[in-house]
Formats: sequence, structure tokens, C-alpha cells
Amino acid sequence: MDATLPSYVDGDWWMPRSGVDAAVVRDASTGEEVARISSEGIDLAGALAYAREAGQRSLGELTFHQRALLLKQFAQVLTEHKDQLYELATTAGATVRDSMIDVDGGIGVLFTYGSKGRRELPNAHVLLDGPAEQLSKDGSFLGRHVYTRLPGVVVQINAFNFPTWGPFEKLAPAFLAGVPTLIKPATPTAHLTEAWVRILVDSGLVPDGALQLVSGPLPGVFELLRLGDAVAFTGSASTAAALRAQTPDGVRFFSETDSINASVLGPDAVPGTPVFDAYIRQLFTELTAKAGQKCTAIRRAIVPAASIDAVVEALRARLDEKLVLGDPRAQGVTMGPLVSLAQTHEVITQVDHLVSAGGRLLLGSTDAPDVVRADGTTGPAPDGAFVAPMLIGFGPDAPDAAHEVEAFGPVSTVIGYSSVAEAAALVNRGGGSLVTSVATDDEGVARELFERVAPYNGRVLMLDSADARTSTGHGSPVPHLVHGGPGRAGGGEELGGIRAVQHFMQRTAVQGSPDMLTALTGVWYSGARVHTDGEHPFRKPLSRLRVGDRFASGQREVTLDDIETFAHFTGDTFYAHMDQQAAAANPFFPGRVAHGYLLISFAAGLFVDPAPGPVLANYGLEDLRFVTPVSPGDAIRVELTAKQITPRETDDYGEVRWDAVIRNQRDELVASYDVLTLVAKQ
Amino acid sequence: MDATLPSYVDGDWWMPRSGVDAAVVRDASTGEEVARISSEGIDLAGALAYAREAGQRSLGELTFHQRALLLKQFAQVLTEHKDQLYELATTAGATVRDSMIDVDGGIGVLFTYGSKGRRELPNAHVLLDGPAEQLSKDGSFLGRHVYTRLPGVVVQINAFNFPTWGPFEKLAPAFLAGVPTLIKPATPTAHLTEAWVRILVDSGLVPDGALQLVSGPLPGVFELLRLGDAVAFTGSASTAAALRAQTPDGVRFFSETDSINASVLGPDAVPGTPVFDAYIRQLFTELTAKAGQKCTAIRRAIVPAASIDAVVEALRARLDEKLVLGDPRAQGVTMGPLVSLAQTHEVITQVDHLVSAGGRLLLGSTDAPDVVRADGTTGPAPDGAFVAPMLIGFGPDAPDAAHEVEAFGPVSTVIGYSSVAEAAALVNRGGGSLVTSVATDDEGVARELFERVAPYNGRVLMLDSADARTSTGHGSPVPHLVHGGPGRAGGGEELGGIRAVQHFMQRTAVQGSPDMLTALTGVWYSGARVHTDGEHPFRKPLSRLRVGDRFASGQREVTLDDIETFAHFTGDTFYAHMDQQAAAANPFFPGRVAHGYLLISFAAGLFVDPAPGPVLANYGLEDLRFVTPVSPGDAIRVELTAKQITPRETDDYGEVRWDAVIRNQRDELVASYDVLTLVAKQ
Repeated sequence: MDATLPSYVDGDWWMPRSGVDAAVVRDASTGEEVARISSEGIDLAGALAYAREAGQRSLGELTFHQRALLLKQFAQVLTEHKDQLYELATTAGATVRDSMIDVDGGIGVLFTYGSKGRRELPNAHVLLDGPAEQLSKDGSFLGRHVYTRLPGVVVQINAFNFPTWGPFEKLAPAFLAGVPTLIKPATPTAHLTEAWVRILVDSGLVPDGALQLVSGPLPGVFELLRLGDAVAFTGSASTAAALRAQTPDGVRFFSETDSINASVLGPDAVPGTPVFDAYIRQLFTELTAKAGQKCTAIRRAIVPAASIDAVVEALRARLDEKLVLGDPRAQGVTMGPLVSLAQTHEVITQVDHLVSAGGRLLLGSTDAPDVVRADGTTGPAPDGAFVAPMLIGFGPDAPDAAHEVEAFGPVSTVIGYSSVAEAAALVNRGGGSLVTSVATDDEGVARELFERVAPYNGRVLMLDSADARTSTGHGSPVPHLVHGGPGRAGGGEELGGIRAVQHFMQRTAVQGSPDMLTALTGVWYSGARVHTDGEHPFRKPLSRLRVGDRFASGQREVTLDDIETFAHFTGDTFYAHMDQQAAAANPFFPGRVAHGYLLISFAAGLFVDPAPGPVLANYGLEDLRFVTPVSPGDAIRVELTAKQITPRETDDYGEVRWDAVIRNQRDELVASYDVLTLVAKQ
Repeated sequence: MDATLPSYVDGDWWMPRSGVDAAVVRDASTGEEVARISSEGIDLAGALAYAREAGQRSLGELTFHQRALLLKQFAQVLTEHKDQLYELATTAGATVRDSMIDVDGGIGVLFTYGSKGRRELPNAHVLLDGPAEQLSKDGSFLGRHVYTRLPGVVVQINAFNFPTWGPFEKLAPAFLAGVPTLIKPATPTAHLTEAWVRILVDSGLVPDGALQLVSGPLPGVFELLRLGDAVAFTGSASTAAALRAQTPDGVRFFSETDSINASVLGPDAVPGTPVFDAYIRQLFTELTAKAGQKCTAIRRAIVPAASIDAVVEALRARLDEKLVLGDPRAQGVTMGPLVSLAQTHEVITQVDHLVSAGGRLLLGSTDAPDVVRADGTTGPAPDGAFVAPMLIGFGPDAPDAAHEVEAFGPVSTVIGYSSVAEAAALVNRGGGSLVTSVATDDEGVARELFERVAPYNGRVLMLDSADARTSTGHGSPVPHLVHGGPGRAGGGEELGGIRAVQHFMQRTAVQGSPDMLTALTGVWYSGARVHTDGEHPFRKPLSRLRVGDRFASGQREVTLDDIETFAHFTGDTFYAHMDQQAAAANPFFPGRVAHGYLLISFAAGLFVDPAPGPVLANYGLEDLRFVTPVSPGDAIRVELTAKQITPRETDDYGEVRWDAVIRNQRDELVASYDVLTLVAKQ
């Protein structure tokens, strides 16, 4: 069997010619050869061109909702093949828990973008940002911000630790934006990425050119990039800096680098409290999950000086109880090896660095540990990349090394502090982090720490009694929230729901007349053409309804009797409606005025079309503002204009947003709002 | 008189010691010495430290609204001294129209941020982004994005062409964010910047350390910057690249560079149409305003090949009619000199470059023109930096130079095209622009061009018959909209309302329990503590009201009679309320159901407190969603909880946003919405 990994480019699988130099990937527990990696001879320029042409074309034919549905289908296909991915992941040292983080986590990203893409984006090709801005007094010149997709390709350069989640957290938003992706996995886990790429390709779901894989290096790729392309990098801060310097002007560069994340134990969370226990559980998880090979793992436990010993002992007890280090194929193993022997040497080197800088090894050691082997026996595994968890102690006067050196494995420092301000200063000495967590039930402590550390962190997790059981954890980015951080953490942002989709789009300010803006954005603006062809727009199904279709009602007087009736019927006898003298004393009312709720109820009575028809329901209302009060004897009328139409992909109806404007008999604006309805397609 | 310009640092005016080498600034029209510029010996590290300490402290004591009010006051003070700034600006060659662009434009930025800051930001210190995200099924773990200000200083490096507007477009959002600024003006117009800095300092309005000015170079400043600082640069693409490379990791770098902006004449806009005329007027303005020294000016007129001659002739006629080149101190002058002789030489060099690349000089010449002198006489002005407007013709096969060479003066190329797709491709050869304008009445043309050019542009202006009179113009960024562009234009964004404030803040994802998130963000979340002390919260003025104060109503049955009554009273006889059989056939309703408007009206009746009190008005409603339909015989109750409190700085009341939730007798969610009220402070 030729174990050389193929790449997937130009719409087909590609293999290097036999005999080329290839990197060898070995099983993390046993050292047996698992795969060979080479991209020598691959046509990178061709792959990029294929993405920019076929990929842009195929994705451009799809709307946001259609792309989102595909992401959901990707997730479903991968869920069916999860066991296969889990099994293969054991070669990289992944336990079942580790694969839940990487594989299920990655699938979760796809599901989240599949869902958010349909709930939070229009079923269209461009994304509007913020409200329209009036740029002329007469309403003839407007501005709006429009996101259009980048016209190029996203090259993603991944770290070894998340061969599934890592590519997906970059792919999902780019795909949703409509931009094709070229994936470069890290060598030690490239075979895991290849496995799911193959599953997706075999499913036939992947649009032409939308997803390519280069299983091996990308020499010279930066020279091939140009305006409209983007690079999404995860890895070390030093590599990020080197790659950023190579990135041509006009090519976006996003980086997420591992950082020296901190977890603060609040002064109130003394031993014996539920928050102390939650802190220890979290510290254990972050040390041992993926053998500590997470860019979000806790690297610095910052605890009250008086609690250091208690933290060490509690962690030791938990390790004694829960830790079973070994080959993940063996029963009961809770922590696997590092990904490779090279990584083991790297971690031990950094631990030595921390110790020589004054750190005391409080738990664990750099000696090769005995482990549970695949056959269930226990003993040394010289060809396996095993490292035991370690905790390294420092005082509050810890040298810079304690805040700068990262041992990318099951290693954390513990640093004592004596005041909340000092704890915050220690956190910030990390120079910018992906995440800091704070374990406290004291809201004052939480507030002080948050105010001081927030600008140095991409994410802050507050662990308290109320969320100790439900917290998703210090080390787990969630697709809903931004992942990334300033400074040392790379200065980038990933995920964060639709925010990440915008990273792969250009925001352009568009200025023009209401008609032009309607033509360009597909949304109706006040002042643009309206269509009043005699047919009530509520009688038009989506197949015939167009933005700008309008219903203009007749006028209805609002009498004092109406106001009285409404007040007594609803119970809303607020003085502004009932008491002339008191109402007139209010700064906003000329005297008794109609209820706002009465006005929008009357307006509904004016615009409704009673018989069954395509409008199925009014499911909500937005941005209602009451502008001019309505006095008894005034008359109102309403104009309702189809503003935005969003057919659903998987239902026989869609959403229609109507611009509603109520005016009085003097044509003054009484109220404006958006009416949200569900309307049948046919 | 010592004409050396002072700097303003460390809370005081600073002068270089006499005898240092200084750059000499000369009058653009006459060559007379205007000022000397040197920062030799200034303590830059001290100025930065002063900003980070005094500036952060003084701005940190203010809320967004208080900072916004100061910006408005800055604008008012400068308006009072406008004449002084106009007069001084003539030394740099500015006509009255030019000073309107720079001075009034700059003041306009301050007014806009003064207004938007109070309308669109909370009266608080942190800015929330997007909705809260539910991260656990039971609601005990939430996530939200919070912007906190950068903990450092913004160093702004300005171009010579906008000595007022340029610093303000960077200062206003940074100031609003709460981040101090250090301004470095460009040498040729540093004296104009110094003039308004002095006016502001003399007004006593500037918070300690919030604004410093270095009138001269900033040698070594990049080595003094660190995480939490930012650099905002305007100037050439090459300088931007050099400075970006010097910027330390963790320091944000924003650049806006002049670009080879295009203006497309649509194929429908043939000579004789109003849009053709508007196009010519715009081209004239962009050539002559500020003598073409605008990064947003039109550098490429892309017109139907058949219309080139007509465009040239129409422009020639307009120049003949409107252009009076001369010293701006002379009556009737409509276009002044460039800022300096050095700039004149630079422009002529670039014109020569374009001509040697194949361009034909269709209008104007590089010869020194005769001009109107300050005394009204006409003739040569050898010490003045005068250049006549020039138009340089290219065919569609124009070489790269036509799309890459910028003559930063009254110079544009004109390039013919034969199809809309070709016009778009020509636009995009600019490699990323600040702005492209399109003159057309044809929505199909507009759409095709927009789709193709949007990702290459920061702004696209659509000029048509409807907005020809009201358009703010191709070359005018407005503070409401993003200014910046991809690629050649620098890849940055400025302005765009509150978007620019966010550039100077860190977005952090915060995770925690509802109580913790309430404590950190000042906003109430569902699941957080509520206070029901027996007093109706509508009886509490802002001085006593707290987020979490709740009113829980009793229950009210909704009868079939209520539905009938409401239907006939309002006229809303939609079948879902009136016809059992038809309603049951609707996919969303079990049978006849209550009107949504009835439910929120009854809810108001349940929560209202009728007598005069601190709640002055219900001015609106947001995010209303109807979830569970209410059938006759069901009963509803409502919970109203104070969610966000925004006292106004200049009124004796403020806004209170109430979380409203309607539930039925089975505790199912019927509807949720936010009620917006105005509440008195006392």
C-alpha cells in the first residue's frame, strides 16, 4: 500500500509521483508509520485559478441560504461517518474526549453556520450592514453599507491540533460568504483532514472548486496571491509574523496564535467553595484535554497566594483520581500522547526554560512516564509521545518567562497574587490572550477584573456557582462568539457567528437615489418607486410579490370615544389618554392623545385583507417609533410597502418585511414600523 | 518674530530650542516664508506616557454621551473661529471652496460624531455588540460581545491636504471611544493644524492628555508603541507599507492611501442627457477642488469610446466658463495653487510618466500657467505652485501606468470602453480604490457595474437624474459612511459612524451567568436577579430605578367576545381571528386566535400605572415576536423588567428599555418585546 496522502485540487484527486521526498507521519503512541506527505510538483497556481474561476462561479450561483443548507448537509454526512474519523484520530493520540472536541466540535461549527446563515442572513447574495443613512434633506440621496464577497480564494494554513475543527472554523464562514477555500493541513494530522475531505467529496455535495486540499507544503504560495484573496492562519506567533510579512498588499491576513492564557481564582473562591471546585475541574480539563495541545488551554493559573498549596493539592487529587495516561486505543485511557515525539521534545524544552527561569515543578515531571499501552499493559512506551501533566509554581514577582513561554502540552504555571489589581496586571503581562477565565461569585471582583483585562483578551469567561455546571469551558471557543485575541494571540478574529462571514466580504458604502439603492440591494427604501396596481399586495404570493408593492389605506378619524373605548376595553387608562389637564402638563403631549397601541391596531384594521390568502401570519413587528401624537378628532391613514422578501429554501413560504407608515390628516408622520409576515410562495 | 511652530505635549506648549534645523513652509502662491517646523528634542516617550496616563484617566471618567457632547462643543468653538482658519488656509493655496471642504468638513465630522455618539451609543463606558447568545439550554450560561476602549494612545500621521478634516476624522471616533490622540500633521500645512489645536486648547474644553500635537517629525515613535496603541495613517501607499512594517505586533495600524479612483459614464448617459451634464460637473469639481489634491479625486474618467470627444469638449467648455486660476486671496479665483513647488514638480513628473506611457494630453499642459495674482493682476507667478487642469487620453488598451500612476493634482485620465463588463474590468485594474462613481439612469447598468466593482471599492456612488442635484459628490467622504478601500487604497476603514469608534476598542466575547453578565454590562438579561419590592417600577424616577426592577401583572382571560369586540372596533377582521374553519386550515393556528395587537394592548392594560409619574411616554417598541398563539379562553399575564437605563446629559429625563414577556396560563411564551419609554430623572 502506498501510504502517500493525495491532495484534492482542480476538481480531482492528485498524487505526487512516486519516489519524491515525503515527510513521514507516525502514530503518536507507537511510532508506527501512518502516512507520507508530499505536495511536490503540485500546480498551486492552477489550484488557485480553479478556485477563483470555478469556485467563485459555483458559489456565486448560490444564495446565503443555499450555502447554509449545504453546510448543514456537510455536517449530516460527517455525522454519519463520525466513527471512522474517531478511529483514525487515535493515530494522532486522540482519546474519545479529544475527538469530541475536534470532530463533534467541527461538525458543530457547520451546524451553527448552517443555522445562523438561514436565520440571520437574507436569502440573497449581498449582506446589508446597518441602517440606510439620509444624505440629503429631501431624501433623494441615501447611503448604505453593503457586503459583497471577496473575489478570490481563502488559503487556510492550519495547526496540527485541530485537523477537523480548525479547517471548519475557517471554511464555514468563507463558504457562507461565497468564497472558495484551499486547505493546507499541518503535516502530523494531514491524514485526518484528508479523511473528511474525502467523505465530503464522495458525498457529491461540494460545489465545484469551493474546497481544495493540498496535503503538503505550499511553497511560493504568497507570491501567487493578489487583491481579493485572503490567508487564514493558525499556529505560532513567530510563524504568523513571518507569513504576515510575506503577504502581498491587498491580501487579507488573519492570524490566530496560541497565547499564554490565564485563569484567575477569585479571592472569595477559597477551598471548600463550589467555585473553587469548579476552578479545579476546569484546570484539570484544560491540562489534560488533547494533552494540553490547545491554543486556548490555561497556561497560567493565577490564584491567591494563600491558596496555592490548596490548588496544587486539589489538582493532584483530581489527577490521581481521573488521569489514565496511555494509548487512546486502550480501555479507560483519559489522556493520550502528544501528537509526535518532536512535540514532546519541544514541550520538555519549554518546561526546562520555565524551570531555569525560577519555576518550581509542583506536579509531574519531564521524565518519560509509564503509560497504558494499546494491549492494556502498563509500562514505558519509548516510541510514544507521552508527557505527564505538570504544574510549575511562580510567585507574583514571576519573571517575564512565566508570561511569555508556552509549553504546548499538559503544562501550566501557577502564580500567586495578593490583590485583584495585581491579578489583573499579571493577566495582562501575557501580552494579549485568546481567553482569560475568572472563577468568582463576587460581582465586584468580576467587574474589576473584567474592566482591567478585557482590552487584552478576545474572550473572558466568568465561572461562578450559577454556570459551573453549564459553562462550555475555558478552552472551548463556541461558533457564536468571536475567537481570537489581541497582541500575542495574533490580533485576529474568527467565528463569532455572522461576524466571521464578513471577514471574507468587502464592506462598500453605496450612495445613490432610493431607486438605485433598491436596484442594487434588493430592498425597498422610502422614496423609491412603488407599485399600486389595484391588487392588494396581501393577495400576492411570493411568486408575484415585488419589493415596492404598496397598499395605501383610506383615512380613519380617531375620536375621543375611540380612546375611551380602547382604554376601558384594554385597561390602559394612562393619564395621557384620560385626563386632559394632566396630559397637557406632560412635556410631550398637547392634551389627551390616542394610545400608541390603538393607532397600530387601527392601522392593522386599515391595511388588513380579511379573507384567506397568501399572507399566513403576522409574526412580529420591529423598530416601532411614535413620532407625532394623535389628538381626538385627528385622522390617520397607513401606507404599507413590501420592503424585503426572503423566501425560505425548505418551506413553501417565506418572510416579507413591510414598511408601515402612519400619517395624520396633515400628512405628519405619526408612527413608523416594520411589519413582519409569513407569506406563501404560491 | 520667531515663526517656529510650537507643539502641544504633556499638557503644555513646547518650543524647540532656537537654532535647530527646521523645515521652512512657504506660501503656496507667493513663496514667502510662512512657518518653520521642528520637533527636535521633544520628549516623545513622555508625550505617549502622558496620553496613556492622564489622557486615559480623563477620558475614562467620561461616558460616551459626555465625550460626544464635548465633540459638539469643539465644533461650536471652531465654528466661531472659522474666519481665522479660512484666512490662514489661503497660505496653503486654499480657496473659500477648498476651506469649506477642509474646515467645514472637519467641523461637520465633529458635529456628526457629537450627534451619533448620543443617539447611537449608550450613556455608558462599554459598547455592546449584537444580541446575547444562549450557550446552555437552561439559560444559565450566556455569551455577549463587549467593546472596551484600547488602553493606549492613537498616533495619527496626516497628509498635507486636509489639515483640519484629516485629523478630525481620526480624532472624533478615537475621542468618542475614550482613547487619547497624538497628532502629527504634515509639514506643508502643520501651521493650519496648530491653529485649531490652539483654539481648542484655549477653550479649556480638552480633557487632560486627550489631545497632543507634535509639529514636526516623530523619529523612533514606532519603537515606543505597544499593545493597546494604534496608528492611523493617511498618505501614500509606499509610506503606508514602510510604516506598517515598522509597527510592533499588537499595535493596530490603519491606513488610508490615495488611490486611482474611477468615474464611469454609463452607456445610456449620452451627450445631451441630464446625467451626462451631471457627470461633467462632477468631473470639473474633482479636477479643480483643492487643485485636485484629494485622495478621493477622480483619476480615471472611464467613458464610452464614442463619447470621449464629447466629454473632452464639455469639460473644456466648463473650464473656460468656470476656471479662474490664481492666488486665493484675489477676488473671483476658483482654483488655487498646489500646496508647494515640490508638489508641482511631483505632479508634472507623473504627468510626463503618463504621457510617455502613451497618454495624449487632451486638455491643459504642464507649462507654468498665467494666474491671477493677489493684487488682481494676471501673469506668471514663478514662486507659486500653480498647475493648470489636465486631461490625458487613453484607449481601452491603456497600459498599467494609466491605472497605477497618480498625479496628485488637477489631473485625470480619460479612458474609452466599449462594454459594461470592460468598463468594470478597467475600474478594477486600479487595484482597489477609495471610491468609484457611476453616472447612469439605467438600473441594469448600475447593477452590473456594482456587482463587478464593489469588492474593489470602499465606496461606490451612483449618480443619476434623481440625485444629480443632491449628491454629496464623488470626492466627498461623509462621516456616516465608511471611508477607505481595499488594496491600493490602504485596506483600512475610517469614519462610517460608530463603526470607526469600534476601531479604537477591543471586542471581547464575555461568557457567564445572567447575573454576571448584568454586572459586567449594566444591562439586564433574562435569568438575572429581579427586584420586586412592591413599588411599581413605573413610579421610580431614574434616580431610583435599577436594571432588574420588575412588575409582574395578574392574569387576564382572553375571551371570544374580546376577539370579536377588538376585530369590529379596529376593523381587523382577518380570518385567523374570525373564522374557525379557515383559521384551523392555516399552518400556524389551532383555530381562531387573538390578534397580536390585542395581546400587546391587553398587556399594556395589565402593566400600565395610570396616574402621572416619572414615566412620561412610551415612544416605541422593538423586536416584537409572537410565539404561541392565544385561543379564546386562554389567559395572559405580562412581566416587565427594566433592561437598560440611558439618562440623557442635556435633558431631565432619559430612555428606559423594558423587557416585556407575555405568557399564557400554561407558562408558554406568547410574545416578547422591548418597550421603550422616556422617564424623568427625578
